[in-house]
Amino acid sequence: MVFKVGLLGLGTVGAGTAEILLNPALRHPLLQEIEICRVGVRSLDKPRPVTLPNSVLTTDLAAIVTDPDIDIVVEVIGGLEPARSLILSAIAHGKHVVTANKAVIARYSDEIFDAANAAGVYVMIEAAVAGGIPVIQPLKQSLSVNRIHRVIGIVNGTTNYILTRMQREGADFDAVLADAQQLGYAEADPSADVDGLDAADKIAILASLAFGGRIKLDDVYCEGIRGVSAADIAYADRLGFVIKLLATALREPPTAAGDSADQLQVRVHPTLLPKTHPLASVNDVYNAILFEGDPVGQVMLFGRGAGAGPTASAVVSDIQNIVAILKTCGGNPPNLHPLLACIHTHYCTLRPMEELVTRFYARFLTHDMSGVIGRLGTCFGNHDVSLESVVQTGYKDDLAEIVVVTHDVREGNFRQALDELRGFEAIAAIPSVLRVL
Amino acid sequence: MVFKVGLLGLGTVGAGTAEILLNPALRHPLLQEIEICRVGVRSLDKPRPVTLPNSVLTTDLAAIVTDPDIDIVVEVIGGLEPARSLILSAIAHGKHVVTANKAVIARYSDEIFDAANAAGVYVMIEAAVAGGIPVIQPLKQSLSVNRIHRVIGIVNGTTNYILTRMQREGADFDAVLADAQQLGYAEADPSADVDGLDAADKIAILASLAFGGRIKLDDVYCEGIRGVSAADIAYADRLGFVIKLLATALREPPTAAGDSADQLQVRVHPTLLPKTHPLASVNDVYNAILFEGDPVGQVMLFGRGAGAGPTASAVVSDIQNIVAILKTCGGNPPNLHPLLACIHTHYCTLRPMEELVTRFYARFLTHDMSGVIGRLGTCFGNHDVSLESVVQTGYKDDLAEIVVVTHDVREGNFRQALDELRGFEAIAAIPSVLRVL
Repeated sequence: MVFKVGLLGLGTVGAGTAEILLNPALRHPLLQEIEICRVGVRSLDKPRPVTLPNSVLTTDLAAIVTDPDIDIVVEVIGGLEPARSLILSAIAHGKHVVTANKAVIARYSDEIFDAANAAGVYVMIEAAVAGGIPVIQPLKQSLSVNRIHRVIGIVNGTTNYILTRMQREGADFDAVLADAQQLGYAEADPSADVDGLDAADKIAILASLAFGGRIKLDDVYCEGIRGVSAADIAYADRLGFVIKLLATALREPPTAAGDSADQLQVRVHPTLLPKTHPLASVNDVYNAILFEGDPVGQVMLFGRGAGAGPTASAVVSDIQNIVAILKTCGGNPPNLHPLLACIHTHYCTLRPMEELVTRFYARFLTHDMSGVIGRLGTCFGNHDVSLESVVQTGYKDDLAEIVVVTHDVREGNFRQALDELRGFEAIAAIPSVLRVL
Repeated sequence: MVFKVGLLGLGTVGAGTAEILLNPALRHPLLQEIEICRVGVRSLDKPRPVTLPNSVLTTDLAAIVTDPDIDIVVEVIGGLEPARSLILSAIAHGKHVVTANKAVIARYSDEIFDAANAAGVYVMIEAAVAGGIPVIQPLKQSLSVNRIHRVIGIVNGTTNYILTRMQREGADFDAVLADAQQLGYAEADPSADVDGLDAADKIAILASLAFGGRIKLDDVYCEGIRGVSAADIAYADRLGFVIKLLATALREPPTAAGDSADQLQVRVHPTLLPKTHPLASVNDVYNAILFEGDPVGQVMLFGRGAGAGPTASAVVSDIQNIVAILKTCGGNPPNLHPLLACIHTHYCTLRPMEELVTRFYARFLTHDMSGVIGRLGTCFGNHDVSLESVVQTGYKDDLAEIVVVTHDVREGNFRQALDELRGFEAIAAIPSVLRVL
């Protein structure tokens, strides 16, 4: 049997995908039954890193998603449109879809999976999260027997690279970002990465799968790493922490009051992480996702989160999984595979950030007046914020620098205390407020 | 639809498996369609941590594997017999099999998978390697699109616990082993763990899947951790290494001479690992497996390698995967799923250890005679062993202690040099010889 693939896009990931499919030796023999039938590109003249017959290339992407010969459409053009419309059209024409497009899936998974279920086709998204690391498929097919409590990921390679270099070199954000842009590790417009938007897309997708419900992307709290300074990294280091951009999804245990089981936290923000934590040693462009579930405990998946090769590995594994099912059932099966299809349709409720209970790190610049630490402590105490440590770390210009780490507190209380402190004459500035795991 | 499971064994893992299946809330809804139909135990009177109807328990295990009502037999009794015979009988009676039994699979996978393919059933083994870490299934279903070069695992929790404590406490092997036995982390007869036999079973299974061929367990080189001393751990630490029991499977690149593609190395031995290596920070009872493939690069999977909960998670995920396929195809499908069934039948050729090319660490005790280091260096040079460092680390009793680290050398050459050195008057003893990654 030969299964026919239509590839939308022949950029980095598209070329990597073609490379694997055109060179099946020493890979799983099932790949020999997969053929690249059409490839949609923007321009026919551009030089390509892979050699494909001219007859395969076309600029008419709409013709690929409607081609009756094609079994599986692979969307690797990225961006919201025309990717979304092409995916929906492919589904409407009975094609299975494999996509690396986290932005489309995080925003339009409801209509896409509704359409896929109605058409009886698969939409596979391994490559949309954490590149080459098998994470979607182990989550669906292995870890889903667990009650997942929490998913914590380092899912953006660019920010992890920047934070790692800031840590190693004692350098500030702007300098490292500029260098990362020169080296090609960061985009000219770095916002999607450094402001946490890319990580928010990915954790929304992971949360949806881990907790079996839909997530509205707008509800996901998102804070990037622009506010992380070399000073904070140095103080965190002294306190036994590293700073990482963590994407977290958490199902809160049901309370006696009878909360719904779907009260979730889904958030992206820089976080102080104990150096002994499994994610603390994930450096450079590497990604890792830590799952905590009952009864499996902690499981961490680690690898390269981006790049042609890793992402293509994920894309082709999805193609191979679809082909494997079609082969098993001898054609289109009567039912969708219940672990690979998306079966939930309700929306999860996300807890507002002010209700989050977490530890905080805050750095204050204060005028060197007597009793400042006492007034800080009193103000926090009035707002039910219990402090783990208060350390005057030194002077900066004429100001004393004080670093505070709290015990677990309600975020709303902590923010109220900070607002009150900002009005104190002795407090010149509060340059950093970070959460602590 | 309800799928019926017959469970062989209700010990730690069996009880953990039942616990998940009896409490499906907040797990994948597919689990609600799985029913524990019969449970085979040695004694009906023993108190159990899970509550099952009396009618379900039986001491007649043979009756379970032949019961026409049962779809899936789960073997968690362990040991070679009667586990092997029960598995073969279940297959002969058309049951799918899920097993956590690494010893049976490492020794009898040929007859078991031949029988399973002939009968058109699955034998699923996620729980046989690395407990709760999804590793078999990601390897088969995700990473198999890659050309896998190498698999390196810390796959035995007991030895990792012992080595971690030796490292932290500066303690010697015997003392930590005795304590680990008292705490229940090591068996009264610790041989399977500390002599590397358990790790050898697991790497044989992983090698077979990663490289698509059968492995004769007798060909797997196996060296345990009894010879690792506190002194070696301390010297390794100074040189920038930790010592871990690594299980390695490696496909050698084809040479110009036209080697077969299946020239493999499969071996278990304590290894000096650079502290910056992703496996170096895997401590205590945790396991991790690092895959290196083209084009995915490095992927590491980390978690708990043993215990009721993690192992039960793996067992139930296998059950769930079988049920998912049966449901998809609306009953027994016409073909076995090509990624879940075992499709290879040839045997791989393993490279003899003397042909291994690796770095070595060796510790010598020498009489304090002038020119000893010179004679060491000359002897190694005569055998084509190039040295990276030679350090006289101190004195032990009346003897000088010298630690040597080589560049990559052929193991056979290194061994010949050691044999020659043992005859030197100046060399009192060579207490440690370890490989370096």
